Parts: sequence; C-alpha cells; structure tokens
Amino acid sequence: MVTDRALEAPLSYAAQHQSAHLEELFEFLRIPSISAQPQHREDVARAAEWLADSMTAAGLENVRIIETDGHPLVYGDNLKAGPGAPTVLIYGHYDVQPPEPLDLWESPPFEPDVRDDYVYARGSADDKGQLFIHVKAIEAFVRCRNGLPVNVKVLAEGEEEVGGPSLAAFIPEQEELLSADVAVISDTPMLAIGKPAIVYGLRGLAYMLVDVYGPKRDLHSGHYGGAVKNPINALAHIIARLQDEGGKVLIPGFYDDVRTLDEEERKILSELPFDEQAWAEEIGVLGPWGEPDYTLIERIGARPTLDVNGIVGGYTGEGGKTVLPAHAHAKISMRLVPDQNPEEIADAFTRYVTEIAPPEVRVEVQTTGGGSFASISDYNTDAVRAAADAYYEVYGEKPVLMREGGSIPVVGQLQSHLGLETVLMGFSSPDAQIHAPNERFYLPNYYQGIETVIHFLYGYAQRFRAEHVEES
Amino acid sequence: MVTDRALEAPLSYAAQHQSAHLEELFEFLRIPSISAQPQHREDVARAAEWLADSMTAAGLENVRIIETDGHPLVYGDNLKAGPGAPTVLIYGHYDVQPPEPLDLWESPPFEPDVRDDYVYARGSADDKGQLFIHVKAIEAFVRCRNGLPVNVKVLAEGEEEVGGPSLAAFIPEQEELLSADVAVISDTPMLAIGKPAIVYGLRGLAYMLVDVYGPKRDLHSGHYGGAVKNPINALAHIIARLQDEGGKVLIPGFYDDVRTLDEEERKILSELPFDEQAWAEEIGVLGPWGEPDYTLIERIGARPTLDVNGIVGGYTGEGGKTVLPAHAHAKISMRLVPDQNPEEIADAFTRYVTEIAPPEVRVEVQTTGGGSFASISDYNTDAVRAAADAYYEVYGEKPVLMREGGSIPVVGQLQSHLGLETVLMGFSSPDAQIHAPNERFYLPNYYQGIETVIHFLYGYAQRFRAEHVEES
Repeated sequence: MVTDRALEAPLSYAAQHQSAHLEELFEFLRIPSISAQPQHREDVARAAEWLADSMTAAGLENVRIIETDGHPLVYGDNLKAGPGAPTVLIYGHYDVQPPEPLDLWESPPFEPDVRDDYVYARGSADDKGQLFIHVKAIEAFVRCRNGLPVNVKVLAEGEEEVGGPSLAAFIPEQEELLSADVAVISDTPMLAIGKPAIVYGLRGLAYMLVDVYGPKRDLHSGHYGGAVKNPINALAHIIARLQDEGGKVLIPGFYDDVRTLDEEERKILSELPFDEQAWAEEIGVLGPWGEPDYTLIERIGARPTLDVNGIVGGYTGEGGKTVLPAHAHAKISMRLVPDQNPEEIADAFTRYVTEIAPPEVRVEVQTTGGGSFASISDYNTDAVRAAADAYYEVYGEKPVLMREGGSIPVVGQLQSHLGLETVLMGFSSPDAQIHAPNERFYLPNYYQGIETVIHFLYGYAQRFRAEHVEES
Repeated sequence: MVTDRALEAPLSYAAQHQSAHLEELFEFLRIPSISAQPQHREDVARAAEWLADSMTAAGLENVRIIETDGHPLVYGDNLKAGPGAPTVLIYGHYDVQPPEPLDLWESPPFEPDVRDDYVYARGSADDKGQLFIHVKAIEAFVRCRNGLPVNVKVLAEGEEEVGGPSLAAFIPEQEELLSADVAVISDTPMLAIGKPAIVYGLRGLAYMLVDVYGPKRDLHSGHYGGAVKNPINALAHIIARLQDEGGKVLIPGFYDDVRTLDEEERKILSELPFDEQAWAEEIGVLGPWGEPDYTLIERIGARPTLDVNGIVGGYTGEGGKTVLPAHAHAKISMRLVPDQNPEEIADAFTRYVTEIAPPEVRVEVQTTGGGSFASISDYNTDAVRAAADAYYEVYGEKPVLMREGGSIPVVGQLQSHLGLETVLMGFSSPDAQIHAPNERFYLPNYYQGIETVIHFLYGYAQRFRAEHVEES
C-alpha cells in the first residue's frame, strides 16, 4: 500500500499514541452513563463533561454541553479546512445500556479489563469506543502541521439507548449548526473480524411497556386460585396473541406499510458472505428461527419483528411461593422497517392489547417515548466510496454493503430534516456482546479504526474537491 | 354461657397472661424462618430451637428436635391425662413464606408491629400465631392443678411452605410416636371476623418450575430479533396453552381423576353465608372469575386450577433495554382436588410442556418436590362436634363447615398412613394477607383461640369418655 505523504504524520501520530489513547478510553468507560436509570443521571452528566473536555483537548473548538429536557448533548467543531473543503458531521453517543444482569459479568462492567485483545466494559463497543475513534482521528490531524483536511462537527448524545427524544427535538431546530455535506456514524458491527461492512439500512423501533393489574395485593393461590384472574396468566395470553409461533406479528395493520424488498436488493443481500453455522454457534442456538419466506439476513435487516425484552411478576426468588400476584409487567419492543411509522405502530399495539385484554384485569400500555423510523441510506456517494477506500487501505478488504437489524434513530432524522445522507462505518465485531453481559471491543479495531477514519477524512476531501473542480 | 368449673382455672390463667403470651409470640415472629431460601437455613433451625424451648416451658415433655434431610421437625408430648383419656395430635408449622416483595410492606416483615388490633409480621397468621395458640392452651392446663384433660402430642414442621418432603417421609415410619385419636390443626381462616369455620376439604398441590433457554447469552434485539427464538415469547406461548382464558386447564388428562361434586355437597356449599361483593372489594377485583359451570365457593374449594406464581426473564429494571434474553423462568402451581394424584399431574404437566415446547429453545421442567394430595375429612365425629361447641362457647356462633382452596399436605398423609381424621380449627381472618406483603393476625383471635382450644380439649375429653363409658 502506498500511503499519501500528507497522511504520514497523522498515521504516525496515532501509532505512537496507542497506549495513551487506550488509557483515555478507559477513563471514558469507567463512567456508568446509563441513560435508562434515573439514579445514574449525574453519571451521564459527568460523561458529557468528560467527553467535552476530551474533545477540546483533541483540538475541537466551540465545544459545549447543550442542556436538554433529558440528558445533555455535546457539540464541538473544527471548521478551518479552508475553501473547497467539505464538512463532515460525526455523530456518536456517550450513554450506555444498563449492565444488568450483573452476576453474569466476568469483570465489573465499569472497570475496563483487557483479555485476549478485547477490552471488556459496558459501552466499550456501543458506542464510547467507536465514538472515541473519531475524536482521536481528529486529534491526529490537528497535532500535525497541516491540520484537518475537512471541516468537522462532532455531535454526541446521551439518550441513544432510551430512544433519543432530546436529539429528535434538537435536530429540526438546528439546521445551520448541523449543516454538513455528509454524516458519519460508527455504531455498527463489521461482518467479522477483519471483514469491514458499511451499513445502509437500519430498522426503526417502537418500545412498549405493558402492565397487568389484578387484585390490589398478592393473594394466596390456594385461597383464591380458580376464582381470581391471574395477571401473569393474562399477560402470557396477551403476549401469545401478539406474535404467532412462526414469527408473524398478529397486530392488525402491522404489515400495512412495510416496504417490499425488490429482487435486486434480495440478490445483493443473498450474496453477502455469511456463515449461518458459525453465526448459530457463536450465540449458542441450534439454528435460525423466523419467518419462513425470508432468509436470515432479510429477517434481521429487512423484516419487522416483536420481542419481549423483559418480563416480571409474582415471586421470582429461589424455590416456590404459592402467590397469585397483584401485578405483572412486560417490556415489548418492535423493530420496524421502511415505511412503518413508529407512532402508528405504537397506537396499533395499544389498541390491540386493550382490545384483547380480559375484562377481569386492568391493562395499561405505554411507550417508552423513543420510537424511531427505519432508514435506508444512499450508497452511491463519494463519501461511501471514500469510506470503502479507507477500509481497503487499512484492512486490505473492501467493505460489504449490508442492512442491519438495530436502530440508530438519528440516521432517519438527519435524512428527513437536514437532507443529510449518513455513512455507517462500523468498527465493532459481531461478537461484541453489546446490550449483554461482557460487552467487549476488539482492540485492534480501535487502533485500525482511528487509521481508517484518518484515511477516510483525507480521501473524502480529495474526492469532494475533485468533483468540485469538475463542476466549477 | 355457663362455664364448667374445671375450665375456670385455665381460662383465668390465659386471661391473666395475655401480654406475656403476646411478647412470646413476637419473639417467635422475629425469627425469619423462610424455608424456601437457603440463606435462611440457620434461621429456620433457630426457630425450631426457640419453639422446642417454648414447648418445654409450657409443660410439654420429651421435647426434641428431629433432624431430617431438610429442616428439622419439633416434637413434644404430655401423656399424663390418665386412663380413658383420648390423645390429640396437634400439628403446626414454624416456617414461613418468603416476604418478598419487601417494598410493599408497611412495617418490616420480621419486626412485629401492632396496628388496629392486628399484629403485622410474616408468619403471624400462617402459621406461628395459630400454632402458638395450642402451646399456650396446653400451658394453661399444665399450670393448673388438674393438668391436661387429654393426652397431647405436638408436632411442628419447618417445611410446610416448601411442600413438607421431610414430614412426608417421617409420618409413615412413626406410627407409634404419632398414634392418636384425632389430629387438630389450626392453619386455616375463619369465614369472617367473629364467624368461625371448620374446614373439611383441602386442595392438593403440584408445583412446577419451567426454564426456557435460548441463546447462550443475552442478545441485542436489533441485531438478532426476528432470527432467534425469544425465550420469553416462547414461555408466554407455553403458558397460554396450559389454561384457556376461561380457566379450563388444557393439560391432557388433567381432569381424568377429578371427583365430581355430588348434589348434597353442592347444596351445603351453596348455603354458606358468603358475600361475593365484600369478597371482591376486600381484594380489589371487580368480581369473581373462573370456570363458568361452578360457583365461586366451588371454584376455590372443589375445583383444580393452574396459576403462574412468578415469572422473570430479560431486563426487569427501569426504562427499556433492547435485549433478546438468554433465559426465561416461570413458577407454575396447580391446586388439586380428590382424587388427583400430584405425581401423575406433575408428570402430565412435564410431558405436555415438553411436547409443546418449540424446537428452537431448550425447555426444562422440574417440580419443587413437594406435591400433595387433596383431602376430605370426616365431619361426623366427636372431635368436630367438640370443636363446634368450643367455638360456640367463645364466639357465640356455631362454625360453618367448608372446603378451603389451600393445601395442608399433612392432612392427607395422616389420613392415609395413620388413619387419623383431622379437625381444622382455623383462627386467622380472611383478610390476613397470608403469603402476601403485610401478613397479619387478628389479635382478638389469638386470645380467643387459646380459649377455644381450652374448651375444645376439655369438651373432646368429655365426649370421648362418655362414648367410652357407653361402649364398655
């Protein structure tokens, strides 16, 4: 590989500062910025401050913490790339998922621990490690004589794991602050270790909380069993009527707006190098499950679904207790695809559950508030080509184009409000165990990610200028 | 009411020692003898020792703690009633239900607190308070010149709330030790405050634990949802197929051995003074639910049922977490009626759940080990008549005869192994909130219970001797 001379200095800076970059990431990971849990509100604020300080230290300017009704946003920019340079909006999030169940962690979730090339910590892959790649790539350019080849704006939120309501309100009001030529986000996995991927499709989300209330207190199941409707039995019946055993969602109207996969895209997706057996082994299942008319890749990336994410009711301690409980609770989320509307889906869910709820119990349905649209990004752009080149320079492999099953609500919001296409350059590994115990980030990807972003920012500037010259 | 002179001394003793008897009960209630929770094993042992000491102090002899594979039994007797006196076997249990959920208790479960004539504590009604009534009635006789009118044997177990496996093994081997003319148990409710009841029918129990295992770790519901069978969704489908929404259990063979209620008994049960509206209001439901062809009283006392007593899986903390969980767990118990066999029912449950379990998850079914048969006691006996008289003396009301929905496994065991009929003289109130937060014991029933048992022991001796004289 022949590296452009202008890249030598920042790449060499990044290579020489690997251990410092790791130490700094550890500091970031030690802050338990769990956005879903009110008792961690101050930790989330502390993470925002830590990130702002770190961005300033990296050479970003105008760094500020933007208060919201929820957790703060962090913004900083460096707009000194000079005439003809494009502007890149980099987005990431500094909040993390709850670490529970704690007893399954092999090392404490907020004490980063390196084992076999992975750093284990909640948020290491999702998304602190991936966000920090960009901060460090920017630092590498700023520290060198010529500065950044592009203008950059960095925007980080602290509510991604709770649906991002504050950012959703902020984006439409900040057209000028957030104006850019392209958005870049690193919050997705690669296809495998050493196999880069650019994600162009993401699912949306509607997240519901269902509470079933029966008697006003827990009852003795002997004295009352058979004469009082049991809220857990009732909840099980409700859940069983939401989705059939084959994976089809039974909520009326659920599939009405689902965009059909066209043959071209089915072909692209079918050509992805994907090892179903390895996939099943890595997660410990016998094989894939789901809608019979769709491939595994299609089920994950292009089909909506419904999962119970949590359930609790009655006695959950050791042994038995003969209680007929007063209350049962379930958390149920639906992943959405284009063109499902999360609000309409939440309404349809609520209507249906209310309708099928038995009259002897009281059923309450709420959303967690953070619904999001699915998104499809244009992959015929200079930015995607520059990203593909950058991956090739560092990994020696061109990235595959793929859809992903997760949700990054900001992608759809940037698209619809600011007209911005996003390049999803992921650096986590499929075995990163995000949202699960023992979340981990493959450390070579941290260093190679910084290199890749350095290549990308430079390459994208070149492609942009070339096109600009042609045009003028 | 004219009280027999021989009863004046023990009744007066009981009346004079009310505050001491209350203090002693409080000591008993402070010991968290939770048999289901391994971390309380030593507390259970401590409760057994405390009870043994207390029985000795009350005048019982040969008091001993009998070790078992599980929690110990406590035995003591006083066999000095002389020729022609009957022997009464008194059974109770000193273990208690788990107190969870703790946050719903208005005072700590193991710090007895008196409010409005009730003492609030776990085990106050079920069964420490009711067991202790007998110890104090015995003490009242022993302290007086003439001693006890009957021979008594007291047997207490520490595993009633976990199905009583050790006692079940002990009874068939101890025919001589436990031989008696009748058994008496106080572990049931009265019909209402001031309205005594003698229970002649109890339901049996089969208690199952169901575990559904999916992927080997919690997964991100975006990255895997739609392609991996969700263990909570699967468990909900299983539960929904165990019982229909009208209350009918769907396990093949479940009703095969159920003894049909005859018209005479339906008539007796239909004549019970029972206020459905008050019943519903007290527990905070709109009205009864259950099998349409049976009355509320029949559903509770004479029909088998199935209740999920607890369920847990995935994320159960605040807010949302988009996890596709590795595991879901449910505790499911079935109340049984004559002539269902708990082992056969447990087997039928296991077979059925295994059969309907989807192939993409691993389902494990276990029993908690403590299945029990339902029981029907003969109510045309001297002992029942003596109990009815005793209630009338103290409460001014004859007790009603009723079936109860709970399970007291020892009743069936005494019947089948020792040929002993049991009189179930209950002193708790229907609003005692047993097995639930804020369990409470109506204190007037504690003192009146002691009086009632004094009357009963004396009256039963008289009836027994009278019959004996006639016979000889």
